[in-house]
Amino acid sequence: MNATAGDASRFADGAAYIDGQFMPLRDARIPITDWGYRRSDVTYDVVGVWDGAFFRLDDHLRRFRASMNSLRLAPRETDAEIRHILTECVRLSGLRNAYVAMDCLRGRAPPGKPLHPAYARNYLTAFAMPWVWVISPEVQQRGAHLVVAKVPRIAEASINPLVKNFHWGDLTQGLFEAFDRGADNCVLLDANGLVTEGPGFNVFSVANGKLVTPDHGALGGITLASVVELCAELGLEIAVRPLPVEEFLDADEVFLSTTAGGVMPVSRLEGRILNNDRPGPISTRMRDLFWAKRAQGWHATPVDYGVAAT
Amino acid sequence: MNATAGDASRFADGAAYIDGQFMPLRDARIPITDWGYRRSDVTYDVVGVWDGAFFRLDDHLRRFRASMNSLRLAPRETDAEIRHILTECVRLSGLRNAYVAMDCLRGRAPPGKPLHPAYARNYLTAFAMPWVWVISPEVQQRGAHLVVAKVPRIAEASINPLVKNFHWGDLTQGLFEAFDRGADNCVLLDANGLVTEGPGFNVFSVANGKLVTPDHGALGGITLASVVELCAELGLEIAVRPLPVEEFLDADEVFLSTTAGGVMPVSRLEGRILNNDRPGPISTRMRDLFWAKRAQGWHATPVDYGVAAT
Repeated sequence: MNATAGDASRFADGAAYIDGQFMPLRDARIPITDWGYRRSDVTYDVVGVWDGAFFRLDDHLRRFRASMNSLRLAPRETDAEIRHILTECVRLSGLRNAYVAMDCLRGRAPPGKPLHPAYARNYLTAFAMPWVWVISPEVQQRGAHLVVAKVPRIAEASINPLVKNFHWGDLTQGLFEAFDRGADNCVLLDANGLVTEGPGFNVFSVANGKLVTPDHGALGGITLASVVELCAELGLEIAVRPLPVEEFLDADEVFLSTTAGGVMPVSRLEGRILNNDRPGPISTRMRDLFWAKRAQGWHATPVDYGVAAT
Repeated sequence: MNATAGDASRFADGAAYIDGQFMPLRDARIPITDWGYRRSDVTYDVVGVWDGAFFRLDDHLRRFRASMNSLRLAPRETDAEIRHILTECVRLSGLRNAYVAMDCLRGRAPPGKPLHPAYARNYLTAFAMPWVWVISPEVQQRGAHLVVAKVPRIAEASINPLVKNFHWGDLTQGLFEAFDRGADNCVLLDANGLVTEGPGFNVFSVANGKLVTPDHGALGGITLASVVELCAELGLEIAVRPLPVEEFLDADEVFLSTTAGGVMPVSRLEGRILNNDRPGPISTRMRDLFWAKRAQGWHATPVDYGVAAT
């Protein structure tokens, strides 16, 4: 833990922590033999830093610990230490708006032990890099164009979507389907034709002024939880229940939520044009309120930039 | 491409190639931000080297290329170059028995491009490390103890099992089920109760002298293809068809096949003791013939160790 923010240029692209060591992001690498990569035996979380403050940091730390417990991953770092490590990555990078990731990897069974994950030493990595938009601000302005992918989402019985994971083969295939059809992004259905989620975001539909978001097959999004809070503030009704694709395709409005993007309106869905090809009124109100409250310090934990503050 | 086998100690643990550079395996790392890791957006293959020769190298190269094409991954290396790279990794390591892996990773969209896999530059990695047994020779001698995992295999509709991938969350969960129940390993079923595969191996049952192996939900194993060839030689009948779990649990014998282990007999299945707790006669004949033919140079491509040969 000997890196300092003095060598700022080395940290310009971001700062990272790997199993006890801080380093520039460009040097942050994991062994090619690690099961975290070779078996995608890893969980992660991502917290946003906006205008120098974490958003819902404790919620992310809590979810990350629950994910690790679920997969029987136990790094040596405590939650308090992880909090410090994330802060240190942001401080070293000097970034005021950052995408901050934390991973816990399985590692690999040491020589002489059976080739079983129970014998591996798990370890933590983290990094802060310049803020990433899942959907760019320009696209958000006009509304995202979404397709319903043909590939079904990996079933919950096989991979629990509440445990944040890198099993993205189906989502990547959906992204190529969107690309081939000239759309920006995709949403996946489960085997029963119910809406689940998209690559890195939760999904909402609006019909007759009421919101619906799926009750299963999707990550328990922290931005989703924020949208639910904002519904109360806006006097909007929201139902968390199964969302059949037929109902979804017939919605008045659709929007998406994610850490790396907040509330993101959709203006085209499977070629259908919504709201005269613009973000809908409720999606827009939700998005505006989300960012207005963020600017007011809602659920914010200011980053202690220490001597590196500018 | 400037590494030489002269510095043998650096390569004692294995040798690797990452996107144009050879290096000791211990230095072989991939960026923590790469989608090959962060989205498990990668395919791979593994070929064995035994007694200084690759086994079915062309079959592995062909399958690897088919996997890459399926995922729209296109590294700059041709098949002839990949063949040279694998050989060079083995030569640098000096290993006579080696586990030789090749991966093609998505990479990451460059700055300024949309955050979409279509814009990433894909690249190749490879490494040779000392031979790994999926099931140790001691366990193979007594026969492996297998459980049928409760977690279902990820459905083919979501992730194509014919394209070798690191979506192993379900298999890892199955390995922990086996561990908790005192068994060595596990096999997974599909949603309809049909046998699929285990973590890194294909599955065979034997009943009334006839073999069955599943026709879907599993990798198109190259060792499996070898077993089919050996069936002809041994005058054994083999059916490639759906294998219901009830039939599987009632088998006279069960064995497994994989690159990193060959033919591996099972002596306990869900607590049931098979063949007086020993490898069964047909499994044993199959295993013996497999290794006898390997020793005779069956499907072998000798490694050119050049000056590094010892």
